[in-house]
Amino acid sequence: MTSPARPRPAPHHDGAALNAPHHDGAALYVADEAPVLGDTVTVLVRVPRADGAERVWIRSPHDGEPAFSAGTLDRVTAAETWWRCGLRVRNPVTGYRFLLDGGPRGYRWLNGAGVHAHDVPDTADFRLSTADPPPDWARDGYVYQIFLDRFARSAAAAGRPPPPWAEPAQWDDPVVSTGTSTGRQFYGGDLDGVTEHLDHLGALGVDTLYLTPFFPAESNHRYNASSFHAVDPLLGGDEALVRLARQVHARGWHLLGDLTVNHCGDTHPWFRRALADPEAAERRFFYFAGPRSDRYADWLGHRSLPKFRHTSAELRRRLLDGPKSVAGRWLDPPYGLDGWRVDVANMAGRHGAEDVNAEVARGLRATLRQVSPQALLLAEHCHDASADLAGDGWHGTMNYSGFTRPLWAWVRSPEPQDHHYLGLPVRAPRLGAESFARAVRAFSAAVPWRSAAASWSLLGSHDSARIRTVVGAPEVAEVAAGLLFTMVGTPMVFAGDEIGLEGRLGEDARRPFPWHRRDRWDRRTMVCYRRLAALRREHEALRRGGLRWVHAAGDALCFLRESARERLLVLAARAPHRPLRLPAAPLGLTGEAPNLYGGADPLRAAPGEPVTLPGDGPAFQVWRLA
Amino acid sequence: MTSPARPRPAPHHDGAALNAPHHDGAALYVADEAPVLGDTVTVLVRVPRADGAERVWIRSPHDGEPAFSAGTLDRVTAAETWWRCGLRVRNPVTGYRFLLDGGPRGYRWLNGAGVHAHDVPDTADFRLSTADPPPDWARDGYVYQIFLDRFARSAAAAGRPPPPWAEPAQWDDPVVSTGTSTGRQFYGGDLDGVTEHLDHLGALGVDTLYLTPFFPAESNHRYNASSFHAVDPLLGGDEALVRLARQVHARGWHLLGDLTVNHCGDTHPWFRRALADPEAAERRFFYFAGPRSDRYADWLGHRSLPKFRHTSAELRRRLLDGPKSVAGRWLDPPYGLDGWRVDVANMAGRHGAEDVNAEVARGLRATLRQVSPQALLLAEHCHDASADLAGDGWHGTMNYSGFTRPLWAWVRSPEPQDHHYLGLPVRAPRLGAESFARAVRAFSAAVPWRSAAASWSLLGSHDSARIRTVVGAPEVAEVAAGLLFTMVGTPMVFAGDEIGLEGRLGEDARRPFPWHRRDRWDRRTMVCYRRLAALRREHEALRRGGLRWVHAAGDALCFLRESARERLLVLAARAPHRPLRLPAAPLGLTGEAPNLYGGADPLRAAPGEPVTLPGDGPAFQVWRLA
Repeated sequence: MTSPARPRPAPHHDGAALNAPHHDGAALYVADEAPVLGDTVTVLVRVPRADGAERVWIRSPHDGEPAFSAGTLDRVTAAETWWRCGLRVRNPVTGYRFLLDGGPRGYRWLNGAGVHAHDVPDTADFRLSTADPPPDWARDGYVYQIFLDRFARSAAAAGRPPPPWAEPAQWDDPVVSTGTSTGRQFYGGDLDGVTEHLDHLGALGVDTLYLTPFFPAESNHRYNASSFHAVDPLLGGDEALVRLARQVHARGWHLLGDLTVNHCGDTHPWFRRALADPEAAERRFFYFAGPRSDRYADWLGHRSLPKFRHTSAELRRRLLDGPKSVAGRWLDPPYGLDGWRVDVANMAGRHGAEDVNAEVARGLRATLRQVSPQALLLAEHCHDASADLAGDGWHGTMNYSGFTRPLWAWVRSPEPQDHHYLGLPVRAPRLGAESFARAVRAFSAAVPWRSAAASWSLLGSHDSARIRTVVGAPEVAEVAAGLLFTMVGTPMVFAGDEIGLEGRLGEDARRPFPWHRRDRWDRRTMVCYRRLAALRREHEALRRGGLRWVHAAGDALCFLRESARERLLVLAARAPHRPLRLPAAPLGLTGEAPNLYGGADPLRAAPGEPVTLPGDGPAFQVWRLA
Repeated sequence: MTSPARPRPAPHHDGAALNAPHHDGAALYVADEAPVLGDTVTVLVRVPRADGAERVWIRSPHDGEPAFSAGTLDRVTAAETWWRCGLRVRNPVTGYRFLLDGGPRGYRWLNGAGVHAHDVPDTADFRLSTADPPPDWARDGYVYQIFLDRFARSAAAAGRPPPPWAEPAQWDDPVVSTGTSTGRQFYGGDLDGVTEHLDHLGALGVDTLYLTPFFPAESNHRYNASSFHAVDPLLGGDEALVRLARQVHARGWHLLGDLTVNHCGDTHPWFRRALADPEAAERRFFYFAGPRSDRYADWLGHRSLPKFRHTSAELRRRLLDGPKSVAGRWLDPPYGLDGWRVDVANMAGRHGAEDVNAEVARGLRATLRQVSPQALLLAEHCHDASADLAGDGWHGTMNYSGFTRPLWAWVRSPEPQDHHYLGLPVRAPRLGAESFARAVRAFSAAVPWRSAAASWSLLGSHDSARIRTVVGAPEVAEVAAGLLFTMVGTPMVFAGDEIGLEGRLGEDARRPFPWHRRDRWDRRTMVCYRRLAALRREHEALRRGGLRWVHAAGDALCFLRESARERLLVLAARAPHRPLRLPAAPLGLTGEAPNLYGGADPLRAAPGEPVTLPGDGPAFQVWRLA
């Protein structure tokens, strides 16, 4: 008789999430992200050995009735079982989730929000859309946002007299960020100014420019268009846009405009006619209180922004339907815009009992398809856009809700904040990484993967505080930028973030780009942005891979980006933390994993030992595991 | 100097949920459940002292853009702060949730799924609908489902020769539950048989009858209608329905029919004409594969059930639009049905790229409003109905997903199960009460409260196994029945459950009601149903109150039903369990709480001591706290 071996205490491990079944919409798991009706798409789900589920079904409603299909074994690796399911595509949007059974954990559901040991509604189901997918260039791109009045002023700009409404400012003047002067303070940036600085963008690795509106308007932001038919002469007019577009396209880049379809300015001739003549066709473009009334619906109480009524077919014909509409004609040569960022897209077509938002989005999309099939349609949407992202309208959104806001709560400075929290009536809270991961997952759960991937991740914009002001320290700004370039979503950078510009709120963030004050640029941050953009460009897993959470608690978070070709491990820490110890087998780490960003040592697997990640912080590290 | 008092160990408490902020859609919290556009509705949220939130806002999207409004103090009690918020109603469905801030827990959100320390999408927001509300009688009712072929046979039935398709059976014959005879086995129950047994229903406390289809059809279940214009002569014809309706209405009860708008039988003249003549108007009522094809879409592969195409206005005119349509005419005298249970409502109008389900539901609703404004429109819907319950179509659904299925997983016998799990490809799992509570909450979260309250809670139906077979022991059947009558939702009982009939699956559950075998009735269960129905009728809190979870784990669950007038505590245990110790203050218990059901001792509050609930089980107890 031999004495029984004393059981060795199990080593402490982090990364319990690595032991959970996983699926997402990346190509690693979904064979076709743009199927046609009638297709059966192969989808894969991976079940770690430590989970032990013995059976897998895919569940998907067909014409409103759930159907189940049993998964079959695809392959078994040392650490995982991969199940293969056939997903029948019967409707334009196919929701699906997985039922797991058997093993120690038994009956559970896997959907976009995770694994659940109780029944769940369909709201967080994975989703596949039959609409044509977002353009590849946009998925792989890096977007740079330029607020035209504040980016750069060409020599010609100095010669243009300021308009009557303007309050002219010198480039070094402080920005007026409250009160009536906010919209009138006029620095005079122009399109040729942008053209002259494309090398700066090239050095950063940028390949897509998004310009705030270039239509004439009586404000510095130009969101109150007085015409959609010409480029504002103060910006250099149509020819300046042609010059810029030519330069941008010559570099192989893309150029996006900014179109407001929710409202126009009260100086717009359509509105003037509607106001002056109750019989005018344009009267039906707006919501007047009565046939003779001069009261009308506006945008959030701003009388200068009369709201469009998209139940008018004539309005839609002029504004967004077809090649000759506003939306269509700027996509054509000689401008050749590569798409639109659509302002206030979340409200367009919505008013009281009327809701034709989906028709507006589909109408724009149809115009793009007709005029420029590779153009992008991106919605401004500051909250939950899932109901608007079936895939047949907007390609994606500005992902404030599912990225910016949760990230701010994780990276914000521990010091008291005096700026508002992205539209909420509170100061930004300071929350742990678990809150960030849960929010990211909750918001991405309910939209097709490709819509989340084509949405813009951003750290801020002309409508928010600057990331540097939010985080305080440049080391934490690097952590935020690291997540911007390594998580799911197309990175969008507001011009100036890369040199550490500050700003307490949207208006204050619109500070002129200090071209002539290079001594004040934060060159460390600029190098970070350049290196992170290169990392993203070089690694398909960061652009097209799936995302698996490994750890998210307190000061540290860690995830995998995986494609068929490579597996990257990302560690972000806002502060020093207990070093994470991860089990090597489910990580798939054998041998040595080189560090790609952040400067930490390579990771090494020792038999039977967990892999230990460094505990310093603020820090942002990326390793290539395979 | 006095020596510091030694801190007393805090007494162990269950009921942590009592310390969480709470809101739901009941009248206790929402001043108007059917506002009109433009209204501002007062809504209340309660914050227990132990939570400590210091500020509350209500957040609600207006025309797609979230707006916030600060809550003001409504009242402060010994245990709680009640906040009052003004909810502006701008759109037909107003989603809202609460932002909490300050205190030890800081930034959090409260929505229909609970309290979250991270940002959440809008999917689980509370919802308010401007559509006219479900009829009061239906909210307060108790529905009894009768499968006509199997309930009771009048003397006249014996004289009717069976139809050619039928396989006649004697009342005592075992039910054939698989194979081709399943739909043909013909027992010959009829409408006069129902009329003759209304006293049995009266004794149970029933006040609403739901009859499975009475239209002629070549099956015992009659879901394959060959006409919508007459009552099947095998059931006694139109006159028998008039006789039954008269008796039902004389008792002050309500009578519901069962209408299939998703398909008809392949014997229906509309379909015969469509098949015979490609030029017939009826051709467009169905989905034929081509102009001359005889291939057509059906219901889940059943060729005898050709699917209706609701994009045909003529079909909708005949079937559901207006007083002369099928849906309309049976609501009129002399039948005077009080509404419809709509078969396969989840699929109606949905086929591939077409989806006019909402138009079908709204069309039916408009017809009801025109013909019989107090009539009920209830959808069969076996999974997540939240997208279909905006309130302007179906009043509610058969709540299999949010009640029956999760409940089965809690109350099912620990013995191996050989019946399928309500449409899922697995046996019913056995899960803890926490899974039940989470599922109930998840499913009810995304629909207007009144839609959840008007939905039918059921323990089973003619489409499922019988609850007695699922649970095994009658003591556990009582626990299940207890929850049926005390949770949110209108109880629906499938005829025979009250005497303990068994059945392994839907077809097997359709056993004839053994009127002549009273010795085999489970009279204990019958008494339970009668007493529970009386309890519900007598206590407004059970019909109209809010529901606050107190505890849900393993073998026991506990919740409060509260109205402005009373507060009931419900304890359900599927097995013996550790007695729960609840803090008296947040329960609002002072003095003695009498037991209303279950026979336990009254609850007593002793200063500074928790209240202990009994730990026996299976058990179902109700106390009146105030």
